Amino acid sequence: MARETGRSTLAGIAAEAGVSVSAVSKVLNGRTDVAAGTRARIAALLRRDGYQVASRLGFGVVDLLIATLHTPWAEELLRGTVQAADEAGASVVVSTVDSPGGFTAWLNRATARGTDGALTVLNLPDSSELQRLAAARIPLVVIDPPEEPGPGIRSVGTTNWQGCLTATRHLIELGHRRIAIIGGPEHLWSSRARLAGYRAALEAAGLEPAGREAAGRAGPAELIRRDQFCAEGGRRQARELLALPQPPTAIVAGNDAQAFGVLQALGERGLRAPQNLSVVGFDDVPVASWATPALTTVRQPLAAMAATAFRMLHAPGSGGAGTGEPHHIELATTLVIRESTGPAPRVI
Amino acid sequence: MARETGRSTLAGIAAEAGVSVSAVSKVLNGRTDVAAGTRARIAALLRRDGYQVASRLGFGVVDLLIATLHTPWAEELLRGTVQAADEAGASVVVSTVDSPGGFTAWLNRATARGTDGALTVLNLPDSSELQRLAAARIPLVVIDPPEEPGPGIRSVGTTNWQGCLTATRHLIELGHRRIAIIGGPEHLWSSRARLAGYRAALEAAGLEPAGREAAGRAGPAELIRRDQFCAEGGRRQARELLALPQPPTAIVAGNDAQAFGVLQALGERGLRAPQNLSVVGFDDVPVASWATPALTTVRQPLAAMAATAFRMLHAPGSGGAGTGEPHHIELATTLVIRESTGPAPRVI
Repeated sequence: MARETGRSTLAGIAAEAGVSVSAVSKVLNGRTDVAAGTRARIAALLRRDGYQVASRLGFGVVDLLIATLHTPWAEELLRGTVQAADEAGASVVVSTVDSPGGFTAWLNRATARGTDGALTVLNLPDSSELQRLAAARIPLVVIDPPEEPGPGIRSVGTTNWQGCLTATRHLIELGHRRIAIIGGPEHLWSSRARLAGYRAALEAAGLEPAGREAAGRAGPAELIRRDQFCAEGGRRQARELLALPQPPTAIVAGNDAQAFGVLQALGERGLRAPQNLSVVGFDDVPVASWATPALTTVRQPLAAMAATAFRMLHAPGSGGAGTGEPHHIELATTLVIRESTGPAPRVI
Repeated sequence: MARETGRSTLAGIAAEAGVSVSAVSKVLNGRTDVAAGTRARIAALLRRDGYQVASRLGFGVVDLLIATLHTPWAEELLRGTVQAADEAGASVVVSTVDSPGGFTAWLNRATARGTDGALTVLNLPDSSELQRLAAARIPLVVIDPPEEPGPGIRSVGTTNWQGCLTATRHLIELGHRRIAIIGGPEHLWSSRARLAGYRAALEAAGLEPAGREAAGRAGPAELIRRDQFCAEGGRRQARELLALPQPPTAIVAGNDAQAFGVLQALGERGLRAPQNLSVVGFDDVPVASWATPALTTVRQPLAAMAATAFRMLHAPGSGGAGTGEPHHIELATTLVIRESTGPAPRVI
């Protein structure tokens, strides 16, 4: 941590900077309740003498690591992070990290300049990466953890189970009985929670829980699909669902992109929502209201999730167990009813 | 630039850091061809002695200032900037700046930590802001300048005139004769260029240039509309166009969001594209292919525009006239033909 020679005491640095020892100590510990200019001056002196300052910039920088910026979903998370940082007078550095090599390159840059913490999206660093983060004293919060969030890592998610339950119940209340679901990739924690929410809604309504039987005959299992979280995945599955001898009257899509794909599959057959089929999305990205018809969807509070993650980075007890701070927080979804859902068509 | 006292010579700093004077000089001038660790060490010594180092971080940071992150368009620009920065080993700080107060807050943060340059999107800083940027030695490149790009400011745009000409010509080639346009806000340079491109295509085809007469009677002027660059704006104008005694058979939308709105207006009347009306968008944001039907649109090379702007920041002769470097670059659009355009319906 310190150079072998020439290291001043904190008191010496305080005297040199013309501030109190307490102020120097605060800066050393990354506290932000020291005026920015003073903080920068103290941090420079500390670094000169080999001290590791929490942020080498002497002001707030948070890194947002995201695998792809190619989705409206990612953009909402970014927007929330930037907004929370703006309010805190901090800066957000955005990096796309989608490989171990990318992580290393990012970490090198981040440690060279210093950072007050890292937010990763849909990405749980592996144990070697976690060790390197800890060694560099970079706190971490995971947004939308891809696996079951364990106590060793702090994370923020959304109530996926409740969200899909609400969406399915909405369709049941509209009179739908044959309701399909297109889930996301099975390895994702969120996909599993959403599927369970769908099943819970059907069971609560006394409807046959789709997918429990199936073997041998064309039963409700055919209504449970999985695909990538993209429009193409939704279109592919909806094409197959619409081609069933007994197609569903409603589809719960894994996300808004898939719901757009469902609308495309309907269009290909000259069908429309909600007259021929109801569709519910998930996320409520800004473009959800651009669809024809505008998407009924489950709103993930993406901006609030990002803001919460930002605050968790700076919460006391960061990264430690037994501090009484929860290691995982889920923010509630809300159902946004627009025009893509309607009464079930009367089936013969 | 230098403190009054205690300033070392560059040679002295080179000796202290154990590097060549040339390396110190490079760091002082913000060159990046010095290893990151060495650069950071030299930069720290320079700063200690009161030298103004091009980036106070001793490594690359670029600021991206954007009014709103709430559109897929903004996201593509961000993606391009992050990608170019990644390749250069630099970091991108993203800030939303939509007011003079926001600009000042950003500038305070940026000068406190240092930055190698600022990219602003659709935003031309006013003369006071430009002065403050110059005083802080922060180079600037404007992406998609909202006004005619003058020689004093470097900027990157797209070939709006050509893009809209190509889109309109595509419709003419499909047999359309009654072609409407929904433009963006008139104060925007890009909106004016696109409208001119539309007119040029009509004139080149020997078609009555819409909007030249109109006074007194319902003529082609009714086919020239303007609204905000959002889905709601497109829907509003398309509703009026479809309600005309003689509606158009094709609409050139100001951007993809407006084109989505046109599709919604069609849906409200039980009409479809391209059977009843052809629609062309502008931008080719990722969600353009999610529409029903997938949007034919004019692709702006948004990611390439951002990457070009990033490189312009570091180009020699930054900010000076007479260096032979162009102050404004436009990257070509391309027409992406998908499913929302088709042959003109036979009109009675």
